[in-house]
Amino acid sequence: MIYITRREQFNAAHKLFKEEWSNEQNLEVFGKCSNPNWHGHNYELFVTVKGEVDPQTGFVMDLKILKDIIREHITDKLDHKNINLDVDFMKGKMASTEVLAIEIFNQLKAQLVPFNVALHKIKLVETENNFVEYYGE
Amino acid sequence: MIYITRREQFNAAHKLFKEEWSNEQNLEVFGKCSNPNWHGHNYELFVTVKGEVDPQTGFVMDLKILKDIIREHITDKLDHKNINLDVDFMKGKMASTEVLAIEIFNQLKAQLVPFNVALHKIKLVETENNFVEYYGE
Amino acid sequence: MIYITRREQFNAAHKLFKEEWSNEQNLEVFGKCSNPNWHGHNYELFVTVKGEVDPQTGFVMDLKILKDIIREHITDKLDHKNINLDVDFMKGKMASTEVLAIEIFNQLKAQLVPFNVALHKIKLVETENNFVEYYGE
Amino acid sequence: MIYITRREQFNAAHKLFKEEWSNEQNLEVFGKCSNPNWHGHNYELFVTVKGEVDPQTGFVMDLKILKDIIREHITDKLDHKNINLDVDFMKGKMASTEVLAIEIFNQLKAQLVPFNVALHKIKLVETENNFVEYYGE
Amino acid sequence: MIYITRREQFNAAHKLFKEEWSNEQNLEVFGKCSNPNWHGHNYELFVTVKGEVDPQTGFVMDLKILKDIIREHITDKLDHKNINLDVDFMKGKMASTEVLAIEIFNQLKAQLVPFNVALHKIKLVETENNFVEYYGE
Amino acid sequence: MIYITRREQFNAAHKLFKEEWSNEQNLEVFGKCSNPNWHGHNYELFVTVKGEVDPQTGFVMDLKILKDIIREHITDKLDHKNINLDVDFMKGKMASTEVLAIEIFNQLKAQLVPFNVALHKIKLVETENNFVEYYGE
Repeated sequence: MIYITRREQFNAAHKLFKEEWSNEQNLEVFGKCSNPNWHGHNYELFVTVKGEVDPQTGFVMDLKILKDIIREHITDKLDHKNINLDVDFMKGKMASTEVLAIEIFNQLKAQLVPFNVALHKIKLVETENNFVEYYGE
Repeated sequence: MIYITRREQFNAAHKLFKEEWSNEQNLEVFGKCSNPNWHGHNYELFVTVKGEVDPQTGFVMDLKILKDIIREHITDKLDHKNINLDVDFMKGKMASTEVLAIEIFNQLKAQLVPFNVALHKIKLVETENNFVEYYGE
Repeated sequence: MIYITRREQFNAAHKLFKEEWSNEQNLEVFGKCSNPNWHGHNYELFVTVKGEVDPQTGFVMDLKILKDIIREHITDKLDHKNINLDVDFMKGKMASTEVLAIEIFNQLKAQLVPFNVALHKIKLVETENNFVEYYGE
Repeated sequence: MIYITRREQFNAAHKLFKEEWSNEQNLEVFGKCSNPNWHGHNYELFVTVKGEVDPQTGFVMDLKILKDIIREHITDKLDHKNINLDVDFMKGKMASTEVLAIEIFNQLKAQLVPFNVALHKIKLVETENNFVEYYGE
Repeated sequence: MIYITRREQFNAAHKLFKEEWSNEQNLEVFGKCSNPNWHGHNYELFVTVKGEVDPQTGFVMDLKILKDIIREHITDKLDHKNINLDVDFMKGKMASTEVLAIEIFNQLKAQLVPFNVALHKIKLVETENNFVEYYGE
Repeated sequence: MIYITRREQFNAAHKLFKEEWSNEQNLEVFGKCSNPNWHGHNYELFVTVKGEVDPQTGFVMDLKILKDIIREHITDKLDHKNINLDVDFMKGKMASTEVLAIEIFNQLKAQLVPFNVALHKIKLVETENNFVEYYGE
């Protein structure tokens, strides 16, 4: 069993904001992250899959395929977008790093079924000081 | 003459967009950077000043003072904000990295007049692949 | 269950040194790390907590609160200090990265009791080539 | 139980290539990584060992000894070398990051037997976007 | 006048080697960098151009165009290649970082003639400890 | 004319402190940097030399020689030392980053006289947020 990780990136806008609350209530709970006109980040996404090494290729999984899956199903939908408004799998959800990591895990898990690997971890880095990790359980 | 640099950061939303153009025209010129619902970045700002070393303190300038000036006049206005909508010194200007670096230079230059240093350079990093530098001339 | 990590930093002096040994014995065991006049590091501290996501906020824990706890109880005591001489929770202990990580874990664990999270890991980076991780067991 | 990690580096050439296949077959499976005239990387190697802290020294293991073992048995054999042609423990094996990480684990495990620690993990970083982790099982 | 920089990367094999010298002479002058079976690096290339900001776009130059030029004329020729054997503009030249930076400068300068900018600098990073800079004079 | 840079590192203790002032006066001017029991940093030192490329070797200067000079004359004297107390060329001087960079420049300039290069710049990084650059004039 070996673990391989691919890093991808996306630059997106978001805010932490509950529509049913006033701006003041949002500011009280979410502070500057609730700025009504949005703010944004350069997100780093680390996708880790685990599996056995194929003795023919020396690979767990062709990283080019993993990269293409991440781009098609995740980062092309998030890059240069507004996470709250533009992303199908985030509609109606809080745009926190925690929730985004969980939703990315769920999106990718479905795409990896045809391959001989398991999705092990999503690590999502929001700033150099903050990141979350999700293992699907 | 010695050069000292202070790094600060801010996380902001923006878009590259001309109001007098249609969404289609903006998309043609600015590509995904014109996304109408914004996107964002973790910006890194490097402020370099130059001057003589004070023989009493060994300092060109107290970096704590430089930090406070940058925060009050620049990063507190940009952090967790929308560069196009929320920032006084960017009103009516294109929110490109180039223009933002020039405006930050002009804002800081005025604040450094009372000190025995010259503002040498603004370096503004938008992503790990793109940055601009401006020397005020 | 999701894991969130906050990075903080501190710049401190220390030495690896047993008072009951001579300088020569210390030099033999600890090499240049036993320099009697001290040396120092820019330490990076990564604090990871785990918990369930609050459906109201999308948070495991408000990172601002976590940051404030780390600063009050850990990094304000270590930053610009001598680990061997100035830090209450390190008195009489070896100032190795291993011991420091364990003591930081114990200090923070007590502070996190009121919150709905568990302290998962302390990662303490001493140089770009050396770090330790402690999970409390 | 605490985990300590040492980072070392090596710069090496390799290709992903099966001798029994034609250049065209290799190109189809391995893409540009099969370039017949080789390519190369700056590899980063993170070696993690775990053990109890020695109350006398505050150490799990003297990192200088760990560094010397890694250099003698691993990085001196790989640095400024061709992984496919020059490295005794890679002879006849695919020079993928996965296989290389597994072989490094096996080489180091044997060397750490005399010490009061267990080899926990090999992390091998090939590019800023790709890395593998192996725990020996 | 403002300076914009684009970072690109390539992973390549090379050796420092003069064909007219013996392996022993090469080893004496170039040390481990002369390994006959090659070694390799993850190179980072920073291309800096300078110019006036276009008041319509806020750009010195569309970075997408600069990226495409760098990839077509430089990094597609170097990435996953052998610098000594596979690269047209390096044929018959020493594959040192210095010479490579100069040749990259000369290749790009020709391509930037149609644009309203000047090529200012090539910075080529071979390892985290070594880099060269060339300004074309 | 081409510029080559070598990075070296050292971990040292220091304080900003004037012996002729009281602890209170030092605290007022230098803040937490005046902690009487010292603090410390992981310093990064970037040494840039400039010269013509030797057509035989493709080198401005053999980086191994430059590395050996930096280590013998600079970093072996600073690494795991106290800058105020242990370093011959800093005796009686303020241990600020500015003064240290200037003194390193002066020490290295003398050592580079036998070589066909000029010392161009010392860049000294004290933390990820602060660095100084000195060009010898």
